[in-house]
Parts: sequence; C-alpha cells; structure tokens
Amino acid sequence: MQPVLNYLKQNQKRFLAEFGDYLRFASVSAQPEHKKDLLACAEWLVAHGRKIGLDARLCPTAGHPIVIAKTPRKKNSRRPHFMVYGHYDVQPPEPFELWKTPPFEPRIAGRNIFARGATDNKGQNFAHLKAVEAYLQTGTPLPCDVTFVLEGEEEVGSANLSKFLKSHRAELDCEAVVISDTGMPAPDHPALTYALRGIIAFEIILRGPARDLHSGIFGGAVENPAMALAQLLAKVRDDQGHVKIPGFYDGVAPLSKYEREQIKRYPLKDAQLKKLLGAPQLFGERGFTPTEQRSSRPTFEINGLTSGYQGEGSKTIVPAWARAKITCRLVPNQRPAHVRKIVCAWLKKNCPPTVRLEITAGHGAEAYLVPPTSAPAQAALRALEKAFGARPVLMREGGSIPIVNEFKKILGADSLLLGIGLPDDNAHSPNEKFSLDCFEQGQRMSVYLWQELSATDGHR
Amino acid sequence: MQPVLNYLKQNQKRFLAEFGDYLRFASVSAQPEHKKDLLACAEWLVAHGRKIGLDARLCPTAGHPIVIAKTPRKKNSRRPHFMVYGHYDVQPPEPFELWKTPPFEPRIAGRNIFARGATDNKGQNFAHLKAVEAYLQTGTPLPCDVTFVLEGEEEVGSANLSKFLKSHRAELDCEAVVISDTGMPAPDHPALTYALRGIIAFEIILRGPARDLHSGIFGGAVENPAMALAQLLAKVRDDQGHVKIPGFYDGVAPLSKYEREQIKRYPLKDAQLKKLLGAPQLFGERGFTPTEQRSSRPTFEINGLTSGYQGEGSKTIVPAWARAKITCRLVPNQRPAHVRKIVCAWLKKNCPPTVRLEITAGHGAEAYLVPPTSAPAQAALRALEKAFGARPVLMREGGSIPIVNEFKKILGADSLLLGIGLPDDNAHSPNEKFSLDCFEQGQRMSVYLWQELSATDGHR
Repeated sequence: MQPVLNYLKQNQKRFLAEFGDYLRFASVSAQPEHKKDLLACAEWLVAHGRKIGLDARLCPTAGHPIVIAKTPRKKNSRRPHFMVYGHYDVQPPEPFELWKTPPFEPRIAGRNIFARGATDNKGQNFAHLKAVEAYLQTGTPLPCDVTFVLEGEEEVGSANLSKFLKSHRAELDCEAVVISDTGMPAPDHPALTYALRGIIAFEIILRGPARDLHSGIFGGAVENPAMALAQLLAKVRDDQGHVKIPGFYDGVAPLSKYEREQIKRYPLKDAQLKKLLGAPQLFGERGFTPTEQRSSRPTFEINGLTSGYQGEGSKTIVPAWARAKITCRLVPNQRPAHVRKIVCAWLKKNCPPTVRLEITAGHGAEAYLVPPTSAPAQAALRALEKAFGARPVLMREGGSIPIVNEFKKILGADSLLLGIGLPDDNAHSPNEKFSLDCFEQGQRMSVYLWQELSATDGHR
Repeated sequence: MQPVLNYLKQNQKRFLAEFGDYLRFASVSAQPEHKKDLLACAEWLVAHGRKIGLDARLCPTAGHPIVIAKTPRKKNSRRPHFMVYGHYDVQPPEPFELWKTPPFEPRIAGRNIFARGATDNKGQNFAHLKAVEAYLQTGTPLPCDVTFVLEGEEEVGSANLSKFLKSHRAELDCEAVVISDTGMPAPDHPALTYALRGIIAFEIILRGPARDLHSGIFGGAVENPAMALAQLLAKVRDDQGHVKIPGFYDGVAPLSKYEREQIKRYPLKDAQLKKLLGAPQLFGERGFTPTEQRSSRPTFEINGLTSGYQGEGSKTIVPAWARAKITCRLVPNQRPAHVRKIVCAWLKKNCPPTVRLEITAGHGAEAYLVPPTSAPAQAALRALEKAFGARPVLMREGGSIPIVNEFKKILGADSLLLGIGLPDDNAHSPNEKFSLDCFEQGQRMSVYLWQELSATDGHR
C-alpha cells in the first residue's frame, strides 16, 4: 500500500490543477444554455479517465450523457466488483452577486477550494478517481474491479438514470455502490451514513362556499375553510410531537442500543443545533434526542399553507377554500403506499361535513437502510478510521436520496454513503467550497476502502 | 299629502330622465383620472338642488367635495331637523367586458335601470331628493327641516367626512340621520336595518426557525410554525361554533323575544341561503338560527393563511413562519378595544414557546344599534308600511358601516338605515341596476317618513 499512498502524497499539486480544470466547466444541468458545458465536462472526464488508465466512455441518454469508467479487468473476472456513483452536474450558481469570486473560476484560499460543484459533487468523486489512479499508475494490484458511473442529471432528478441502469444491468452488476455525496459532521468526525428517510408528499384542499364571501354579511352562518383546515391539521399531532394518526408508526423499528450509542457520538450538540436553526427552542417527539428525531423518526410536516387574502392590510372575507402542502418523512420498514393510505383515510374521516376535502397525491420514496453491523458497513468504517485517523460516526440522514432505492431495486446492490463534505461547504449556496484536507483524506479513504471491502466475505 | 303623492306620480318620466343625467357622471372616487367627473357630478347636484327649491352649495374638502342641500328654513326654526346622508361617488366599473351595456350609459329594461351607481347610491339618495322636491314644488309644508349631505368619498373610506362633520356641527345638528344605502330582502319586504356589527382586524405571525429549513435534514427536531399556527387557531373555536376565548362574549346582550320574532320574518330561508353560498351545509354557533348567527352574534374569522411554499408541486421545507389574517365581527355592547385586548392576551398565553408570536393590529369599529322599539324606529316602520303596502321587516346587518358611529359621536344623532336596494342589484359588481319600483316606493317612503318622524315626541 505504501507506494499508492506515496503516489497520492507526491501528486497533490497536479491533482489540484486537474481538479481546477474539472471545476471550470459550468455544468449546470438545470439551465438549457449549459448543455454544451455538460457535454464538454463529460468528454473531459472520459479523456481524463483514459489518461489515468481507465476504460472510459460516454453513454448518451435522452438528457445529459453518463460517463462509465472502469478499471481494466479480465474477462470473467472473479474479483469483487464495486461501483462508484457520482455526478458531474452542478446546481445553478445564482445569485451571482453573493459569490466573492466567480463560481466557475476556482480559487484556493487556505485549505479550501471555492467553486460551484467543489463539494457537490466534483471534489468528492474526483477523490475516488485519484485513489484508483494511484493504484493503476503505481502498478499496485487492486483487490477488486471498480466501475465509475458519473451522471449529469443528479441536480435535476436523475430522470434518465433508471433506464440506464436497466439497460446496463449486466455490466453494472456489483457487490455495492459507493457514493460520496453526503456529509461528515466535522473534520475530525468521518462518517458512514447507513440510513435515509423516505417520503410521501400530498396536498389537501378544504372547500367551503362557492366563492369568497363577505364576512360581515355571511360570516357566522357558514364554515370558514381556513378554520376547518386548522382544526383538522391540529388534530394530527399532540403537544409532545407525537403524530396521533392511528397506525402512523406501524413497523417503525426502535433504534438498537448500538445505534443510539453511535448517534450519541454525533458531534453537533443541541445548543449548536438550536443556534444553527435560529429557532426559539428545539422541539420534537418526546423520548428521542434531536438527532434521533430528525434522522430516525417519521414526521408529518406542513410545507405550505394558502387561503383567502394574503396581501397588505385586511380583506373581510370568508375564504372559499384553504390548502395545505404536506410531506411525511418515513423511516425504514414504513411503506410509503401504506402510510399514504392510512393518512388519507384518517384525514377523510376527521374532516368535518361543513367542507369538501380534496387530496392530491405527490411523489413518494422508501426509506433506506444498510445494517450498520453488516460486513460492508463495518469495512467502510475501518477504511474511514485508517484514512482519517479518527473513529468514524455512524449516521442516519433525515433526507431522502431516491437513487439508492433504484440501485437496490435494479442492481440488487446496497449503497455505502461515505460523504466527505463538511457542514460549512455551502452546497447549493453561493461560495461553495471543498476542504483540501477532505480531498486528500477522501483519496486515502478510497484507497483503503477497496482493500477493506474486498476482504469481507460473501462476494461471488 | 295627496298633492305630494300626485306630483310624484305625474313626474316619474321626468325624474327618470334626470336620474339618467345623474348616472352619466363617471364619478369613480377610487380612480384619480375621474376627479373632474366627481366635481362635475357634485356641481350638477348643487344646480339640481337649487332647481327643485333647495338651498344647495359645494363644500370643498381635502378630497372630493361634499354637497349640502337644505330645505328653506326660518332663522331659529323650532321644527325638528333631519339629515339625509348619501354619496354620489361610485365603485370602479371594471371589468368592463362583463357589462352588457356601458356602465355610464344608463339603460332601462323592464322595471330596472342599469348603470354603475344605480343602486349604490345615486338611485337611493335621488329618491329622497324627489320626495322633498314634491313637497317644495306643490307648496305642501314640510313638518321638519331636511338637510342633504351627499359626499364623494364613501367608496374609498370617507376619509374627509369626520372633519367635515366637526366643522359643520352646528349646521348639521339634527334629530336623526336617514341613510338609504343598505338593502331590503325582497320587493315585498321593505326593511329597517336597526343594527350593524362592529369589527376588529389584526394579523398574527408565528416565527420559528430563522429561515425555511430542509424538512429532511432538520424536520422532526424543530417546531413547524404552520402546525403551531393551526393548533393555536384550532383552539379558538369549539366544534359547535362557539368561540372559546374567555370573555369574548362579555356584554353581548341576548336577542329580545321581539327581535327573534322579527328575525324569523326574514324571507331568506335556510335552504335558499345554503344554495346562495354554495357551501356543503350551513354551520354556525349552536343555539342560533343562521340569520341570527350572521347578524347578531360575534365571530372570529380567518380571512387568510400564508406559510411556506405555495407554488406547484411540493417543496420539502419546514417554513420559517406562518401568518393568519383575522377579523372578529362584534355586536352591540362589545367594545372593540376590549375584545382586541382579551383576544391578543389569549393568543399570547396559548402560543407555544416553540415559536415567537407577533400581532399586528388593524382597523376597528364599534357595532351599532338603534333600539327597534324606539320612537324613530317605529316611525320609520310606519312610513315603510304606508309606502310599500307591506309589513316591513326589522333587520340586523352583519357588516359594518363605520360612518354611523361618526354621526353618533360627532352629531349625537342615531341613524335610520332604510335601504331600498334589492339583493340582485349587483352593487359593486358588473351590470349594477336599481328597481324602478323601489325608486318610486322609496320616494313615497321619504314623503311619509318626514311626517312620521316629525310626529314623534322628544324633539327640541
């Protein structure tokens, strides 16, 4: 291993220059005028992959192309096979005026590099590319086959990824997918994210009178749909943060002692979280810590309310209707279709006859979990500890990353979420940056990861 | 009286032509480009008043002028003095495309005249002018002095009326103010409106996190202000329509047996009201009929809700804040300042510590009541019955007309609300009209009114 690690050490300066070239592409997938920048970026990745010894090619899709780059392998290789998933597209950089330097002119300041896409996700996938380059360029045998899949539509919903996975199922058949596209809580706290929450989205409209009514002439003799909505929503949750819809928590597995202990090691303290959120106080389901509440417990969240008059001053009406946009975050073992069914049935049952209830279903996604005590998870933890020289934390993420469910469904592969972004990286915000320490430690993590993952049992 | 009534009968054709002239002025007070039309309309009124025998003049204000027109009177007259209040300004006519014929080109169809301002309020005040003309032109002695005050800013809040009343207090000192600017429920149901509801307006904002938060990353560990708002508002009212804020009903006098009997005679049946509103059902405070609920009981009404995301689809956020616009309708004996105080104190007390509550006070107005058994009210009822040949109904109106409180406060005079508009007159809407039957019966009502009012005791 030493030649590989030495190679990394000796080539950081060149890596940084190459990373700068990668960041200069304005690969903004949401903006049609950047279509050629996405293509140029993908072509650069193919050329760069080939230069470092990978078997790389461009795969056109109905949208932006996907880059496949594979380590050289023997026909009928019996080595374990792992996929690295990442994306070369980036969020729109707007508002430009908030950037200290232009978003596509990378700037190094101290131990950080500033540019759109630095942490999300170019820096994180480039660290893996450099680790594999070190194996290939030093002639050190890799204990496994590695295939990079770098897409250009992650920031716009990965619309063409499922079809691509299905049509490349044989080529992408693998033991696990490695994704560095999440975060670690602090520089000395490397992390494995082993669970994600799922989601159901829907909106409800309560309709009362046929039109907005004069509240003086008619108010008092007809239901106010905004009040009916408030009363319906108020019943959903008790004052201890518990959702009262019967069956809502069906199937939710309690956190194991091991998980609760791991979660306790999460370095963001309650006082820091409160300050970060700027709320008068933290509040959540009784019996759980804030970290548990936002990562491991389902929620019923009102995302928006709309009714009646919203302008300046007052307008004396009984509104004709009132609407709430709602999402529920789900945890492993909750089935989105089932939760949607019981929530909608409960709303219908509890809606008063004074208004008509309409429910519009939105998207849904299952929660995700890789058992933290499983062999690949434990292998990943060992790689993290070796690379960072610090005991890693096990994390559940409160958000949803729908593509991991696609990897599981289509390829049958679990995903290992080994994010090396920091909370202050400004992903999706102006002045996005990536830590050069994380970049280097991420390269070492990847080096160790192939060793640790390949050493576990149960491969083909 | 017969010469007066005959004069009316013989001159309807000319009255209609004059009414048409009055309606042709585009006296839209809300639109600055019509300033000259308002002035021209006021000057026409002065000239017309003089022509029919009144002592008329234009009184400039900071806004549009006020017309004063008085019956000729002796110095130190000891006759009772009544004021007729009306307004010559009209609502904006937009949207033009919904008018069958242009709004300022009066059109007679059957027994209706169509034009902006026909019922609100030119037709109603013109009926009084024609009644007084009949007395003056037939040489029939009026039993009282009558002063017309016709303003040009009623549709924009009567901003200059209070100052005008204060500076003309001596000249306008009177027994009662007669206002025909409300409605009667049906052609065969003339009405005296003896009470109006008051109002307090305010808005509340509940602030949680410093900004909208990612509902996946943070949801569950922080209060959702939209949910906190729903729970706070839900507590205000029970499921029988009763406001639960202690003290809210303080001072509310129960309806007398006489009033309840009068209200029962109101011709709009529940089924008709339900159809008119288009609501799934009627709903209001238990123990009161729909007519009572919307005229004689205070309400807590949500006029608007705003929070978080309101666009298409979903946005997975915990909103930073949630807002409700609220008005309470008040009834006689409820003091707006007191109700505002107890409602705000209750909201503060019941708002959870997880959010910060901000309350912004809006306008307020007292309720109004002329005892329906008082001498002037009974005199008005007699005049209505003689003019319409039908037993009048006594009505409470659910809306608020702030100027009646000004008349009481500044002049010490009660207002008699003798509206002769019909529910289908389209006041404030396209194709506004006024019934020619109401116009003629309104003239006769005015003729009888001066007799009946002057015959009551208690004048100076």
